[in-house]
Amino acid sequence: MGSTFGKLFKISTWGESHGGGVGVVVDGCPPKIALSEGDIQFDLDRRRPGQSEITTPRNEADQAEILSGTFEGQTLGSPIAVLVRNKDARPEAYTEMSEKFRPSHADYTYQAKYGIRNWQGGGRSSARETIGRVAAAAIAKKVLVEKFAPELEILAYVKSIRDIYAEVDPNTVAFETIEGNMVRTGDPNAVEPMVDLVKEMRGEGNSVGGVIECVVRNIPVGLGMPVFDRLEADLAKAMMSLPATKGFEIGSGFGGTQMTGREHNDPFRMEEGRVRTTSNRSGGVQGGISNGENLVFRIAFKPTATIMTSQETVNLEGENTELKGRGRHDPCVLPRAVPMVEAMTSLVLVDHAMRQKAQCD
Amino acid sequence: MGSTFGKLFKISTWGESHGGGVGVVVDGCPPKIALSEGDIQFDLDRRRPGQSEITTPRNEADQAEILSGTFEGQTLGSPIAVLVRNKDARPEAYTEMSEKFRPSHADYTYQAKYGIRNWQGGGRSSARETIGRVAAAAIAKKVLVEKFAPELEILAYVKSIRDIYAEVDPNTVAFETIEGNMVRTGDPNAVEPMVDLVKEMRGEGNSVGGVIECVVRNIPVGLGMPVFDRLEADLAKAMMSLPATKGFEIGSGFGGTQMTGREHNDPFRMEEGRVRTTSNRSGGVQGGISNGENLVFRIAFKPTATIMTSQETVNLEGENTELKGRGRHDPCVLPRAVPMVEAMTSLVLVDHAMRQKAQCD
Amino acid sequence: MGSTFGKLFKISTWGESHGGGVGVVVDGCPPKIALSEGDIQFDLDRRRPGQSEITTPRNEADQAEILSGTFEGQTLGSPIAVLVRNKDARPEAYTEMSEKFRPSHADYTYQAKYGIRNWQGGGRSSARETIGRVAAAAIAKKVLVEKFAPELEILAYVKSIRDIYAEVDPNTVAFETIEGNMVRTGDPNAVEPMVDLVKEMRGEGNSVGGVIECVVRNIPVGLGMPVFDRLEADLAKAMMSLPATKGFEIGSGFGGTQMTGREHNDPFRMEEGRVRTTSNRSGGVQGGISNGENLVFRIAFKPTATIMTSQETVNLEGENTELKGRGRHDPCVLPRAVPMVEAMTSLVLVDHAMRQKAQCD
Amino acid sequence: MGSTFGKLFKISTWGESHGGGVGVVVDGCPPKIALSEGDIQFDLDRRRPGQSEITTPRNEADQAEILSGTFEGQTLGSPIAVLVRNKDARPEAYTEMSEKFRPSHADYTYQAKYGIRNWQGGGRSSARETIGRVAAAAIAKKVLVEKFAPELEILAYVKSIRDIYAEVDPNTVAFETIEGNMVRTGDPNAVEPMVDLVKEMRGEGNSVGGVIECVVRNIPVGLGMPVFDRLEADLAKAMMSLPATKGFEIGSGFGGTQMTGREHNDPFRMEEGRVRTTSNRSGGVQGGISNGENLVFRIAFKPTATIMTSQETVNLEGENTELKGRGRHDPCVLPRAVPMVEAMTSLVLVDHAMRQKAQCD
Repeated sequence: MGSTFGKLFKISTWGESHGGGVGVVVDGCPPKIALSEGDIQFDLDRRRPGQSEITTPRNEADQAEILSGTFEGQTLGSPIAVLVRNKDARPEAYTEMSEKFRPSHADYTYQAKYGIRNWQGGGRSSARETIGRVAAAAIAKKVLVEKFAPELEILAYVKSIRDIYAEVDPNTVAFETIEGNMVRTGDPNAVEPMVDLVKEMRGEGNSVGGVIECVVRNIPVGLGMPVFDRLEADLAKAMMSLPATKGFEIGSGFGGTQMTGREHNDPFRMEEGRVRTTSNRSGGVQGGISNGENLVFRIAFKPTATIMTSQETVNLEGENTELKGRGRHDPCVLPRAVPMVEAMTSLVLVDHAMRQKAQCD
Repeated sequence: MGSTFGKLFKISTWGESHGGGVGVVVDGCPPKIALSEGDIQFDLDRRRPGQSEITTPRNEADQAEILSGTFEGQTLGSPIAVLVRNKDARPEAYTEMSEKFRPSHADYTYQAKYGIRNWQGGGRSSARETIGRVAAAAIAKKVLVEKFAPELEILAYVKSIRDIYAEVDPNTVAFETIEGNMVRTGDPNAVEPMVDLVKEMRGEGNSVGGVIECVVRNIPVGLGMPVFDRLEADLAKAMMSLPATKGFEIGSGFGGTQMTGREHNDPFRMEEGRVRTTSNRSGGVQGGISNGENLVFRIAFKPTATIMTSQETVNLEGENTELKGRGRHDPCVLPRAVPMVEAMTSLVLVDHAMRQKAQCD
Repeated sequence: MGSTFGKLFKISTWGESHGGGVGVVVDGCPPKIALSEGDIQFDLDRRRPGQSEITTPRNEADQAEILSGTFEGQTLGSPIAVLVRNKDARPEAYTEMSEKFRPSHADYTYQAKYGIRNWQGGGRSSARETIGRVAAAAIAKKVLVEKFAPELEILAYVKSIRDIYAEVDPNTVAFETIEGNMVRTGDPNAVEPMVDLVKEMRGEGNSVGGVIECVVRNIPVGLGMPVFDRLEADLAKAMMSLPATKGFEIGSGFGGTQMTGREHNDPFRMEEGRVRTTSNRSGGVQGGISNGENLVFRIAFKPTATIMTSQETVNLEGENTELKGRGRHDPCVLPRAVPMVEAMTSLVLVDHAMRQKAQCD
Repeated sequence: MGSTFGKLFKISTWGESHGGGVGVVVDGCPPKIALSEGDIQFDLDRRRPGQSEITTPRNEADQAEILSGTFEGQTLGSPIAVLVRNKDARPEAYTEMSEKFRPSHADYTYQAKYGIRNWQGGGRSSARETIGRVAAAAIAKKVLVEKFAPELEILAYVKSIRDIYAEVDPNTVAFETIEGNMVRTGDPNAVEPMVDLVKEMRGEGNSVGGVIECVVRNIPVGLGMPVFDRLEADLAKAMMSLPATKGFEIGSGFGGTQMTGREHNDPFRMEEGRVRTTSNRSGGVQGGISNGENLVFRIAFKPTATIMTSQETVNLEGENTELKGRGRHDPCVLPRAVPMVEAMTSLVLVDHAMRQKAQCD
C-alpha cells in the first residue's frame, strides 16, 4: 500500500528498474480535461536519463503510452493507466550486487524487509520509479490549470550544489532561464561552476549533492487541511518520498530559528483589495493553509550513493567484504530531480484543491 | 478528513482551544495491552501549560478520561476515546482577535478557507490540539514496547534555541538528563544560557525559536514502505504537522549537501552477528526503510508568533490596522514541543510496525 | 480501523454498551452549516430505548453533547465530537455472560478475535454503538439539504415483520405516517397485526425479525463512483454493517431474477425536460450511479438473538453448557432500526455528494 | 478513487472495453509468494468470453502479462502490475449508442455524471473491467493459502437461473462438479434445463438472470472488523460492486425473517475441541466476525440489459427515440460471473486476514 499517493487524485505507481516497465494508474482525475501522450512526454523528457553530459548515459526514450481513461483526446473520469517500457536494461552490470549490499543504497534494507529483492539496477528503489510520478503529475498540472488556478506556476531549480550557491529570486525566476541550462539552476552565473564541479566529481568517480528550491506562484488561498494534512506537511512527505532526499524546509526554514518573533512575523497589509503579507517568512502557508503568497520550499539531496571507489560492505552471507561501484549513474542527481520536485508539488496541490472544493466550496 | 492520522493505528483528534474540550479516538489499537489513565497522564503532564517558569501561565490540569476501548485495565481492540476538558479558558482575552488577524498566526487562513473561525485562543490551530496526539501516542508507545520492540527508546530534546547550541550525543543521552531541566535539552551546560535567553525574550515581549533533535534507539530493521510511505517521509509529514514547524531533516540533512559521496556513504560492517554501519549519515533509514541504526532527525520551530508588540495587520473588513499581542503564551515553544515530537514519532512507528507485520511477517 | 466510515465526510464511532459512554467524531464536515444539539437529539430520540411499549425498557435519555467543531451555532469545518454518556447500565445482569457465549450473539467471535471482551451488555457489539452513527448522520442530513439537494427526503419504514407485510408506495409515503405509529411502518393497516405479533413474541420470551424498506426521493443524478464505490455497493456495505442484518437488495432485488430482460429493463422517456425511466426496476441506480429516480432498497433483519429460553451453548473453558437469556432487550429490532437505516443512508449520500463535487463539478 | 479496493492488499483496476487494454495494480502483496502468469491465466480463462455456447461470442484470449513486482518467480513485496490487451474490439458495432442511451445500462448515468463517456462497448462499465479484479484475486488466493489458511476453499456456483433452482449442499459441493458443466452450477440435474432456458432466451433475443451462491470452507476464526468493516458488510460491498448485481444475503438472509429467534439462533457445541454451531443460520459470521463455520452467501444478478428488441429510450439531445440491441453479449451473465464472485471473495478475505494479523496476532 506504500506505492499509493493522494486521497482524491489517487495515484499508484509500479515498476522496477529492470523488468516489464514502469507506470502509474491515476484514479480520480476529473473528466473532460484535454490530455494526450504529448502532455506527459514533455516532463518525462526532462526527467529521462542521457539528456545531457552531466547525467547518466543510460539511454531510455521513456516513451509513454496511455492505456485507458481517455477518449477522443479527453479524460473520461475513469482511471488513467500510463505505461513506459524498460528498454536499455543491463542486468549483467549488477551481478556482483546480487551478493553484496551497496553502501547507502536500499539493497540491505529491501533484503531485510522483504527477504527478497530485485538486485538489477536498484529494482523498485531506482529513480526510474519516479517516471510514474512524473507522468501522473503532468495530468495533475493540467487539472490544476484548467479547473483551479489558471495562472498557477510551479518552478523548481537547483539552488546549490555542494558549496556553490545560485542567486535566484523565487518571485521572478523564469522557466526559460532554468530550462536553458543543463544544471537547471535559476542563476546563469552559477551554471559553469556547477557543471565544472559535477564533471570534476565524475572524473574522480565521486559524487555530490545539493539543494533544490521550488516556488509556486498564483496559488489559491485556502489549500491545506489542518491538523495533520497541513499543506507543508503533505509537501514535506511528498519531497521526502523522493530518492536521495535528506531534508525539507519551507519559508524561513532552519534559518528562521535565528530570528526573534519580532523579526520573523509577516505583517499583513491590504494590496489591490487582497490581504497580503509584506514579507514571506511563512513561505506561503500559515496554520497549514496557503495564504496566497508564493509557496517557497527547499529540499536537500545527498550525494549519489553510487561511486566508483572500493568501499567496505557486507554480503548476503553476513561476511565483511568490499565492493566497487559499477553501472551507469548520475554523479549529481539534482538536474533530473528538478522535474520530480515539480511533479510531487503538483500531486499535492491537485489533491488539496479537490479536497478544498469538496469541503469548503 | 485532515484530522485523521495513521492507516492501521488510526487516530482522529478533535477540539478547539476554547470549547467543550479536546481529545482523540484511537481506532485499531491491538487488544490486551495494559492501559490506564495514568499511562496517558504522564506525557500530558509533560506537555501541559504552566509547568515551569518559562512556559505559558495558562493553568490547565489536562486530566484525561478514557471513555471507551478498555476493560479491566486492558485494551479491547475497539476504539479508545480520550477526553480532556478545557478549564482555564478566557475567551474575553481574545475579543480584539475576533476582528483582526494576528500576524503569522492561522487567523487569516482559517477565515479565508472556512469563512468562519473560532477566534478564541486560536481555536483548532491552538497547540492545545496536540493533547489528542500526545494521549494517543502514550497508547502507541505501550503497543510498540509490548508487541514490537521491547528495548525501544524515543527521546527528543532541545538541540538549539536561536544561536545557543546544546552538545548532545544522540547515542547516549538519557531521559533523566533531558527531563531534569526545564528547557528539556540534553546538555546540562546549555540549560542556563537557554533559560536566560527565553526570559530575556519574554521580558522584551518578544519570542524565540530553535531546533529539536529526536533519536530512536533499538528500532527494528524493516520499518517503512516504499515508495511514498518511506519512513522518513512519514516522519517528515508527522513533524511538519506540528504547529510552528518550518523544517525537517534526517541524518546528515542539509549539512550533508556539503559532503561528497565518498565522505557521505555509510560503510557496512558485521558486528556481533548483525549488519551495522560504521557511520550513520543515513540517520537510520536507507531506501525509506529502517536499517536498525538509530533514527536521528531534527525539526526547526519558528519563534512564537504571539509577541507583545504592536504589529501591522488587517481586519475582517479588509482594512489596514494594528494589533498588539495579548493572552497567555509561551515565549519559546520548544520545551513543551519535546513530548509532541516524541508523540508523533511513536504514532509513525506503531503504524509502520503494524503494516510491516501485516505484509512481511 | 474498522470503526471509521466515509472518505470525505469521515466518521469515527466509539463506545461500549457499558462504560464511559458512546459517541462519534465527524472529520470533514463543511463549514457554516447551522448546527445545534437539538438537530442531533431528534434522531437520537427516535433511536433510543424505552420509547414505546414494544421496545426494550432500558431507560436512556441519550442526551447528546457537542464538544467541538461548532461556534456560535455553526460548523467550523473542524472535527465535530459528540458525546452521549451511558446512564442506565446494569452490568450485574450480565455476570453469567462473562463465562458463557450467548448463541447467535458476538460473544464468541469477539473473544476469539481479540482474546478479551467487555461482556457487559454486548460491549462494542451492542446496538448502543449506533448512537454515534445516528448523531453523525443528523449532521450529514443538514449538509445534504443545505449544500446538495434541498428537496432530499430519506424515509425508511418497516416493510414486514415475519409474515405480516405492509402495503407501502415508496413514491408517496409520508414521514408523518411512519412516525405516527410505534412500529414505524408506512401502512396504517399493518400496525395492529405487527404490534400484536411483537407482543405475542415477547410474551413467549421469543423474538422476530423482518424487512425495512428505504426510499430516497429527489436525489441528484450522478452520485456513485464506479467501479468499486458504486452507490449500491456502498449502501449495501452501510446497511450490512448494522447489527442483525442478513440481506440487502435494491430495486427489483432477488425478485428481479424471475424476470426476463425484456420485462426488467427500464425504458427511458423525456418528462418535463428531464430524462426519466417509466419503471424503476433499477431502484434508482444504473452502472453504480444514481439516475435521479427514487432510490429504493430493502434490508433483512434477523430475529433478535436474545430470547428468554434456555439454549445450548459453550463456556470460556470450552465445555458444553446451557444459558437462558436475561437482560433488557427488544423482541423485534425493526422499529428502532428505522432511524439507523436512514442514518447510514445519509452518511453514504453525503460522502458521495462531496466526492462528486470534488471530481466532476 | 472509486477504482481502488482494499486497505492493505490494495488493488487499482483500470481500463475500458475498447482501448489500450485492461489491468490492475496490486499494492501491498506480501513478498516471496510463488507467482507466475499461469496462476493468473487460470481464472482469466474461466472468466473470458467465448468459452462456451451460452456465452458471448466475443473472442478474447485475455492473455495476462505481469509487468512488475515479481523476480525469479516470486513476489517482491512491491506493486504487481498486470496488463491484458484488448484484441477483438469492434467499436463500429456501437455507433448508434454514441447517440442513444441503452435502457438499464450505464450509458445515461455515465454521461450525466462525467459529461463524457466512451460509448464503445460499455467503456468502463463493461464486464471486461472485471479482468483486473480476477487477476488480482488470483494473487490474493495464493497469499491466503500460503500465509493464512492452507485448507481454504472458495467455491461459487449458479444456484438458480430465473425459476430453475439447483439443489446444492454448500458443505460438500466440489469444484470439479461446478467446473464440469458450462453453466457452473453445482447440481448436475439442473444443467440441462438451465442451458435450455438460456438458449431459449437467446433465441428470442431476450435475457435472463439468477442467483449465485458462494461458500468459503476452512476459513480462520476472527476475520472481520466491527463495526463498519464487518466481514459481511465488506462482502456485500464487494458483491454489489460487480456489474448486474441487485441483492446480497448471507446465511438465512431474507428467508430468515420468517423465523422466530428460537428457530433462528445457532446453538454452540464443542466438537473435536473446537467451538462449533450445530446449525449455520448465521452464515459463518457473528457480530461481523467469522466464527469458523462455512461462509455461505448469495448474490442476485439481474437479466442482461442488452436484448435484441426495439426499446424506448432517449438520445443525447434529450429526444424520445427507439433503440434495438446490437453487439455481442451474454444472454445470461451467471456462468461467467462465478469466477468474479470468487475473485471478490478472495480480495475481501486476504485484506481482512492481513488486517487481523496486524492488529490481533
